[in-house]
Amino acid sequence: MNATFAEISAALSDKQRILVVSHLRPDGDALGCTIAFALWLKSLGKEVVTWNEDGMLDKFRYLPGHEMVTTPPEEPQAFDAVVALDNSVKKRLGTVIPAIKDGALWINIDHHVSNDRYGDLNYIDPSAPATGQILCEFFRDRQIAITPDQAANLYAAISTDTGSFQYAGTGPRTFQAAMELVAAGVNVAQISRDMYENQPRRRLELLRHALNGAEFSCEGRVACFSLTLADVDRLGVLPEDNEGIIDHLRSVEGVIAAVFFEELPEAKVRVSARSKDPSVDVCKICALFKGGGHPLAAGARVRGGLEEVKERFLEAVCHEIRNRN
Amino acid sequence: MNATFAEISAALSDKQRILVVSHLRPDGDALGCTIAFALWLKSLGKEVVTWNEDGMLDKFRYLPGHEMVTTPPEEPQAFDAVVALDNSVKKRLGTVIPAIKDGALWINIDHHVSNDRYGDLNYIDPSAPATGQILCEFFRDRQIAITPDQAANLYAAISTDTGSFQYAGTGPRTFQAAMELVAAGVNVAQISRDMYENQPRRRLELLRHALNGAEFSCEGRVACFSLTLADVDRLGVLPEDNEGIIDHLRSVEGVIAAVFFEELPEAKVRVSARSKDPSVDVCKICALFKGGGHPLAAGARVRGGLEEVKERFLEAVCHEIRNRN
Repeated sequence: MNATFAEISAALSDKQRILVVSHLRPDGDALGCTIAFALWLKSLGKEVVTWNEDGMLDKFRYLPGHEMVTTPPEEPQAFDAVVALDNSVKKRLGTVIPAIKDGALWINIDHHVSNDRYGDLNYIDPSAPATGQILCEFFRDRQIAITPDQAANLYAAISTDTGSFQYAGTGPRTFQAAMELVAAGVNVAQISRDMYENQPRRRLELLRHALNGAEFSCEGRVACFSLTLADVDRLGVLPEDNEGIIDHLRSVEGVIAAVFFEELPEAKVRVSARSKDPSVDVCKICALFKGGGHPLAAGARVRGGLEEVKERFLEAVCHEIRNRN
Repeated sequence: MNATFAEISAALSDKQRILVVSHLRPDGDALGCTIAFALWLKSLGKEVVTWNEDGMLDKFRYLPGHEMVTTPPEEPQAFDAVVALDNSVKKRLGTVIPAIKDGALWINIDHHVSNDRYGDLNYIDPSAPATGQILCEFFRDRQIAITPDQAANLYAAISTDTGSFQYAGTGPRTFQAAMELVAAGVNVAQISRDMYENQPRRRLELLRHALNGAEFSCEGRVACFSLTLADVDRLGVLPEDNEGIIDHLRSVEGVIAAVFFEELPEAKVRVSARSKDPSVDVCKICALFKGGGHPLAAGARVRGGLEEVKERFLEAVCHEIRNRN
């Protein structure tokens, strides 16, 4: 059962040294929530520490307060409380875990349906499309005024996790949260430019590469592109650059599923699949390759060469499309 | 001075045959508002006609009620009232104008600051980022329940005109409107797929062409691409396909201004310029070439060959960037 916002707030009120954390390979929701919550705790006079296995990513340096987020130290530290945000299972905190001494109260606030409730106090709301929305509702419930810096972080959290208010789960509560955050001082045009219009040039090169190599199969209903180890080397792309590239293929008229094949060392291929039709469940297809995810967005790591994995996977996707109800 | 919503509603109440129109080369705001308003008038038992010079565009066929929108007939018709939505100056109605007999009451509801108030009753609100937002506020003010079909049209109007809630002018009122529309029954994930993930394949070809031919100048602060008449012919692209292509260049880190040069017949070039920094006013630059627009988005039609116009325009942009404060 979920703790109430009042219980969470009461539990934190008598704690002094508090750690705020989120999952490794953090996205905007992970980092935005971490910073917004930490800023609030600081304003209460708490001693606040924010760690992430990957530290602060360059692409999120527009978040006010980003300088607070550091990688965890080698030597474990003691805390009165640990607040884990947007983190479904404890091990997704990565190197943060061994840096925390036993004895802290764990608070776990998240929107992932797969959250395994590892906290002493848990607040899990899978109906929220972003943990940022839950934090907005927490602040509203506790009648806590949101500062412009907190608002910018929560706005970025919600906007990035909903694909700018487009993904499933974006509902009236999401827009209510956005309304309140903008009223609290978010400059929408500026932060949108920071979030969506400040891509490294190498990402444009990657998109160009993807479009030039795009292949359509299954009567135009499946689109895919591949990235070899040599491509990665030549283009100098980072793992974070891949995000969203696949959407360009999925967005083509007639395409139902888009797949991205990325060659990995040791004869493996990372497969990312996206569907835009609920009748084509890419999670089911990925499960055939020991992967998983959601019905419209799933992935797998498959042993084998790029061409071979590609052929097998595309065949499975096309089979699924041809045989759906 | 603006009429009140009450005055507009009262003026329409005793009219029976009503025409709803918007600007030629319609966007989502133009068509979404046209249909949403027409659906409301129909629900009151009015005889409603909706025309657009370009009729219904294929790419907006996801709008419920889209089949109502037709091109104007050759023979003029009489109306009790004409409601022009999202249309700044009368002549932007194009071939709709000669199809309307004199004698109608003109109502003009718009968000363009350049609106010249050509209506008998005018309601112009330049603080709204979309006319769809004004119509939401009209319905709220008049305590008119919005149906799911009307909501989908108004949601599309607002989302497309704000670049999915990203452009300047997107404020608390915009999110409040979205909240109410979603509560009224919009399926956000579905309509977002319809709006943003259903591009014709030729648009992907155009994007590929643009990325392959992209050029960066002025120390990476200016990006541009060109489209020759031969390219248009080879790629089979329509004017509406160009929309948004330039944003891919503008979104690159370090780029301040992006420019798109399109060769036109009769030795002219259509120039579209976008800035992401208010200190670089592309409207001012376009004015040097007898064009106009907004500080961050402007255009011009320039006499001359593609290469020559490109060189002159890029020089002007770079000069502006180097000499800004």
